[in-house]
Amino acid sequence: MSFNATSSSLPTHAELNEAYFVECDKQDPLTCFRDQFELADDLIYLNGNSLGVLPTAAKARMQEVIATEWGEGLIRSWNTYSWIDLPQRIGAKLAKIVGAKEHEVIVSDSTSVNLFKLAAAAIKLNPGRTKIVTEPGNFPTDLYILNGVKNFIGADIEIVTVPSNEITQHIDENTALVCLTHVHYKSGTMLNMNVITKAAHEKGALMMWDLSHSTGAVPVNLNQAQADLAVGCGYKYLNGGPGAPAFLYVAEKHIKSLQQPLTGWFGHANAFAMSDEYEAASGIEKTLCGTTPVIAASALEVGVDIMSQVDFVVLREKSLSLSEHFIKLMAPLCEQYGFELATPLDPNHRGSQVSYTHPEGYAIIQALIHQNIIGDFRAPNILRFGFAPLYVQFMDLWNTVNTLENIMRNETWNRPEFMKRSKVT
Amino acid sequence: MSFNATSSSLPTHAELNEAYFVECDKQDPLTCFRDQFELADDLIYLNGNSLGVLPTAAKARMQEVIATEWGEGLIRSWNTYSWIDLPQRIGAKLAKIVGAKEHEVIVSDSTSVNLFKLAAAAIKLNPGRTKIVTEPGNFPTDLYILNGVKNFIGADIEIVTVPSNEITQHIDENTALVCLTHVHYKSGTMLNMNVITKAAHEKGALMMWDLSHSTGAVPVNLNQAQADLAVGCGYKYLNGGPGAPAFLYVAEKHIKSLQQPLTGWFGHANAFAMSDEYEAASGIEKTLCGTTPVIAASALEVGVDIMSQVDFVVLREKSLSLSEHFIKLMAPLCEQYGFELATPLDPNHRGSQVSYTHPEGYAIIQALIHQNIIGDFRAPNILRFGFAPLYVQFMDLWNTVNTLENIMRNETWNRPEFMKRSKVT
Repeated sequence: MSFNATSSSLPTHAELNEAYFVECDKQDPLTCFRDQFELADDLIYLNGNSLGVLPTAAKARMQEVIATEWGEGLIRSWNTYSWIDLPQRIGAKLAKIVGAKEHEVIVSDSTSVNLFKLAAAAIKLNPGRTKIVTEPGNFPTDLYILNGVKNFIGADIEIVTVPSNEITQHIDENTALVCLTHVHYKSGTMLNMNVITKAAHEKGALMMWDLSHSTGAVPVNLNQAQADLAVGCGYKYLNGGPGAPAFLYVAEKHIKSLQQPLTGWFGHANAFAMSDEYEAASGIEKTLCGTTPVIAASALEVGVDIMSQVDFVVLREKSLSLSEHFIKLMAPLCEQYGFELATPLDPNHRGSQVSYTHPEGYAIIQALIHQNIIGDFRAPNILRFGFAPLYVQFMDLWNTVNTLENIMRNETWNRPEFMKRSKVT
Repeated sequence: MSFNATSSSLPTHAELNEAYFVECDKQDPLTCFRDQFELADDLIYLNGNSLGVLPTAAKARMQEVIATEWGEGLIRSWNTYSWIDLPQRIGAKLAKIVGAKEHEVIVSDSTSVNLFKLAAAAIKLNPGRTKIVTEPGNFPTDLYILNGVKNFIGADIEIVTVPSNEITQHIDENTALVCLTHVHYKSGTMLNMNVITKAAHEKGALMMWDLSHSTGAVPVNLNQAQADLAVGCGYKYLNGGPGAPAFLYVAEKHIKSLQQPLTGWFGHANAFAMSDEYEAASGIEKTLCGTTPVIAASALEVGVDIMSQVDFVVLREKSLSLSEHFIKLMAPLCEQYGFELATPLDPNHRGSQVSYTHPEGYAIIQALIHQNIIGDFRAPNILRFGFAPLYVQFMDLWNTVNTLENIMRNETWNRPEFMKRSKVT
């Protein structure tokens, strides 16, 4: 078999049976990666786009960091275990995963905080321009943070939201920054990084990409796209742990002139000189702010180390094969039970997740979770199924769609306990 | 014996012998706390003011969070283990430690990031005023962050640095914010929170305290002082782990009107509605930004839980007794070897550390560390000895000063390996 993932290359729906998916898993060249993660046999986890799974190696590594590095090494570990270099060290590893130079990427803070730093910096890098272009329905924190920057910076900043398919037409000579999420969190739509970045540059605008739903899920090449700025999340496809530190990227040519507002001591050229005057580090370290979260960053490093071993051509092939097969398996349920595909059919415009709308989406997802199949729901009516290629199996697709078919046929989603909204959805 | 800690109540220098300090430890009412921490028998750790030690309970708790909550619970743990409430839950516990109401304190980000949020917010809370008053030689990140706020806010902000003993005279009708560190990181000087806060209020200025070197080290009562804003560090006396999340405080009366610039999704009134428009949470949650660092926050909670059991009257008595004894033991070394006390002799003006200046401070500290006695050095010439009252013993004082005396007498500090500067000092 091949992971050729165009719909036309798949077998007919009738040929998609259990034996077929068993065979797919046998042929999976990434199967060795699944063994590196802690996954219960009775669990189907299709939510790695929200929170990645635990790498087995992270358990021992965390014990080591806590008992040995912190417990025994104490303050000395800043030097002896090079805690001080963690942000750059992990950043350099991430650089290879997102197609950047080692000194262009660094780990720090949260995606939201990093968005703030770089959006504010972009306005300074592009003086005289007052427009930030983004899309409505972008990941909420991106919109909220851009708004926070606008309110904080006294200048007359205008945030313009335009549907992503019209965005290049709305970039103009007054646009300081275009800020978009590469793979959309709800629909799984993947934008064309090269085309949009080029369009931004043609008008003199800077381009910032949010890679939260891309990094570790699809091939990314920031340098090839000539992207100016980027941020990304550590706890989704990178499997860095809940609330893992995030990362950011600044293209080499901007590092020297970049000024960001969160000028904490870890961004200083010589933090331990303890001088009263801030002097920004000359490198990407200037984007650091407070003290490195050593424990959390060390957990992230384990996930990044695993991802560093991956051939992204193979990963992309498997990812698209998973989503193509899922879409095909789901087709009859769409017809019969009213699911509507919210993800592009064209694989070139798809990340590593497939989403559907359904008016009873919340309860349906709860009913699936009750059966140990974990996807998630996003308001108002989106069901998301994430296919993290390192550990999702083809049999998971078969089992998920069969279980979902049962839930719909027997209307088991229609129980009070599945309707009750949790604090976090 | 008593922990009465005025110099006059101590025995003469000749009476301060090993047997005396053994007896002090026997009488120590906090001795049960030391058993809750991982401390090697051959190590004297006087650096809890920089990085606290590992609580034994944190080892098991971290395994649980990683293997069970993350590994097994996965995304469900946001609800089942109430990850979503971690910032408020730990904040409420911290509130008791800093004399605040439960809903006035929350855990998030780093001290630096929190300083940024609240300094920017303070300027909005106090419109028309353009001056921020602080002290030269304040902890660097405080000065750097205030400068970052000034550079990015459109308004004409002026940062005025005045020595802390003159600060009240420089607060005027144009002062938006007074921002000071309660216990100075270098000298260990403790400012009078009540007096300075009152002076700020008399001129209509807001008062923000950095409690990084106070929380868990000295009694703090933000409500009694009527402080407006505060930030603090999780990894020093709170023993929350290297780079632990920080916390912040907003006085109840300001919460409703407070607007902070880092408007990430976790500060939204209803984050999981995923709406395009930012609507700040009504409570202290409005100061949150990105996703909660679950692993790191869970480690911090263990340290906070231990600190929550402490009687701060007893803690303060022991702390001052430790510093008084240390100062007395060190007096002959000052005379003979040129150490100069950099910490106030008046215990009312002292935090929980004692500092000295010495031109060879760096090498002397390295020589001590070589003997498993860990204090630290701060440029250009400060030797710091932190006395975390929960685990520092009276015998540690005796052993430290004797070892230091040996180092000075034999000039063992004067070796090339002790001169070589590490990346982190």
